[in-house]
Amino acid sequence: MPILNKDMTLCISLSERPSNNGTRFHNHLYEQLGLNWIYKAFRPTDIADAIAGVRGLGIRGCAVSMPHKEAVIELVDHMTESAAAIASVNTIVNDDGVLTAYNTDFLAVAQLVEDLDKDLSVAVRGSGGMAKATVAALKSAGFGDVTVVARNETRGTALAEQYGFAYSAEVPAGATMLVNVTPIGMDGGDGAGQLSFTEEEIARAEVVFDVIAVPAETPLIAAGRAAGKRDITGAEVMTLQALEQFVLYTGITPTAEQVAAAEEFMRSQA
Amino acid sequence: MPILNKDMTLCISLSERPSNNGTRFHNHLYEQLGLNWIYKAFRPTDIADAIAGVRGLGIRGCAVSMPHKEAVIELVDHMTESAAAIASVNTIVNDDGVLTAYNTDFLAVAQLVEDLDKDLSVAVRGSGGMAKATVAALKSAGFGDVTVVARNETRGTALAEQYGFAYSAEVPAGATMLVNVTPIGMDGGDGAGQLSFTEEEIARAEVVFDVIAVPAETPLIAAGRAAGKRDITGAEVMTLQALEQFVLYTGITPTAEQVAAAEEFMRSQA
Repeated sequence: MPILNKDMTLCISLSERPSNNGTRFHNHLYEQLGLNWIYKAFRPTDIADAIAGVRGLGIRGCAVSMPHKEAVIELVDHMTESAAAIASVNTIVNDDGVLTAYNTDFLAVAQLVEDLDKDLSVAVRGSGGMAKATVAALKSAGFGDVTVVARNETRGTALAEQYGFAYSAEVPAGATMLVNVTPIGMDGGDGAGQLSFTEEEIARAEVVFDVIAVPAETPLIAAGRAAGKRDITGAEVMTLQALEQFVLYTGITPTAEQVAAAEEFMRSQA
Repeated sequence: MPILNKDMTLCISLSERPSNNGTRFHNHLYEQLGLNWIYKAFRPTDIADAIAGVRGLGIRGCAVSMPHKEAVIELVDHMTESAAAIASVNTIVNDDGVLTAYNTDFLAVAQLVEDLDKDLSVAVRGSGGMAKATVAALKSAGFGDVTVVARNETRGTALAEQYGFAYSAEVPAGATMLVNVTPIGMDGGDGAGQLSFTEEEIARAEVVFDVIAVPAETPLIAAGRAAGKRDITGAEVMTLQALEQFVLYTGITPTAEQVAAAEEFMRSQA
């Protein structure tokens, strides 16, 4: 049985539709590292009361999912650059009642593109919340040639202009890095099994990057690999952003093997 | 490892000096009964924020210890008789955001004295918070001849008058039931090893009742047993009040064997 004790440090997530991913990933790392910590997902009934609870109960860390990522901004004490750049919080760290907000999606994307050639001509397809994190992270990482490709011209233009980039309804012919931040290719959705860029666009590119995490190999990633392109997957983003949360909460950086084991445990759920 | 999951129902305790008792007792019963629940003690930094968190996070149940038992009165939605009678809350039940307060110390004492002869002449030694719960429970159970015995005349008189009972600085000669609600006889305190009533008083009594739970057999209980008296122990109060909490939270009444196993597990901690 789980021998819980009074001294355990608690971390939580707040989501309208909680999954077991964070609960399994973090608890598995706590176990591997011998930390007297527990992690549990919550579906808050009131976000302000929930954040008050984080403070009042001394909950160490708190992941924030839709639709609370903007609402918590006014409830925290400090916004770090990653959250402020996109006005979206997915992580809160509680230091003795002082709440500091981060966005580890931004941090994960910035880290994954860090060693790429900054002269790549990037086409980002999508204009939603994750597109914002991705475009801001590309900007922060030093990319200068980025085009936001979106069906919704108003949102696409607004997103591009916010970061000094271009907007286009079509993928530019010279794009050498293709980034998908739409649901195209995601299991269980309308775009399941579909390719988010054309075979020709992939053939011309050097790098393909899909933020879709399920399946681990989307049609875009599969096509990129078949064509010998460098790829960055949504699974990498998901794991890295969860790892960033773990490090922010605990101050401990697990080994790659420990992270891989936690990731496998997370994915192995029924 | 504890395979926590997102669907677990959480119950907590709020205390300035948390112990592992509730955490071990409740978690052991959850495990025995196959409930997908967890229990953990917290030391709140702000009681209003903590109670907001109970609401906002959908925490099902919350035990309240010193010094928060009075402060939470204005933070709950409903006070049941057990809490209202003594203006002291030790248990909060959350039904979809509606918080109802109880005092299971009161409920446990009332239940333990239920089948005693109500014509017993009761001497209650002490005038603190637990004395209040005990005197109120005796009143509620139907005892009419109760004397509050306390060194502090102001507090003792106030407590006695509140329930229509007598005050005395000394134990009445005719007392046939002796109740200790002072720290006398408690391990680790100034009164460790001491007898809370005299041998003569015990010899004249029919029933001895000690609310001290540690040690399980206090000097008063040991002397009462040696003299062949009926006894009620603090360990019984402690277990019964925790069981009342368990039933209020889960709606399930465990068997006596299950409760005994949880109690043993609780006591077996290092």
